[in-house]
Amino acid sequence: MTLHATYDPDNIFAKMLRGEIPCVKVYEDDVALAFMDVFPQSEGHTLVIPKGVEARNFLEMPTDKLGAYMQRVQKVAKAVEQGLSPDGLVVTQFNGSAAGQTVFHLHFHIIPRWEGKDLGRHAGGGMADTEVLGELATRIQAKL
Amino acid sequence: MTLHATYDPDNIFAKMLRGEIPCVKVYEDDVALAFMDVFPQSEGHTLVIPKGVEARNFLEMPTDKLGAYMQRVQKVAKAVEQGLSPDGLVVTQFNGSAAGQTVFHLHFHIIPRWEGKDLGRHAGGGMADTEVLGELATRIQAKL
Repeated sequence: MTLHATYDPDNIFAKMLRGEIPCVKVYEDDVALAFMDVFPQSEGHTLVIPKGVEARNFLEMPTDKLGAYMQRVQKVAKAVEQGLSPDGLVVTQFNGSAAGQTVFHLHFHIIPRWEGKDLGRHAGGGMADTEVLGELATRIQAKL
Repeated sequence: MTLHATYDPDNIFAKMLRGEIPCVKVYEDDVALAFMDVFPQSEGHTLVIPKGVEARNFLEMPTDKLGAYMQRVQKVAKAVEQGLSPDGLVVTQFNGSAAGQTVFHLHFHIIPRWEGKDLGRHAGGGMADTEVLGELATRIQAKL
């Protein structure tokens, strides 16, 4: 059962927040960091994570910090939509490995959808090219 | 393209909010209404919708009302987890029919997951029995 456990400060997103490992950044302020998913399920798959909290998932996010964080999720989602013009957009979040969670620091997925184009499996297409992700990030950032 | 369009005040969730059609209610206050999905993708599939706004989706939700609404989503998600004890929980939201959206009033899905049990297709299992949904709602409400 992975839904309830102790926050591991050495999870990969915590390391990104500390600048110990790189990411293709889309947005950052004092509340949240947004970056391109390196195992995108579709072109433009972006993640938004909260800063300054040890929350493994949505259930553990301090209620008084939830609103500001979700505003950043919305801000980035709007920019993904405006920058990449998909037909639709999935906003999703997994709690526990049984739900598909693989990194145990709260993150919302913003996944562009196009008509007639199925979603890829996470990591199914392998790791994305950093340069390609950088170009997508630039198009999103232009709308922030 | 359904991502951008005018809010239809006769969508099924708006009718629920006006009490014109019934729902199996889980929670209600001045900010949000939560109820059991009648086409559950898993046992305990619950929806949370905002009140007093004409928002088709997450992108259209007024930023200043987003925090209070998401706190209700979290409150209900915690109660679903505590009341039904799933192994995991998916929190998800679709923008546009290309993303799987079928009702165009903002709603977050709270979908319990159990190890080794695949998700059903939405409506794939047909309409759920109201009595069964009522029992699930009671177990969730006990944790609210």
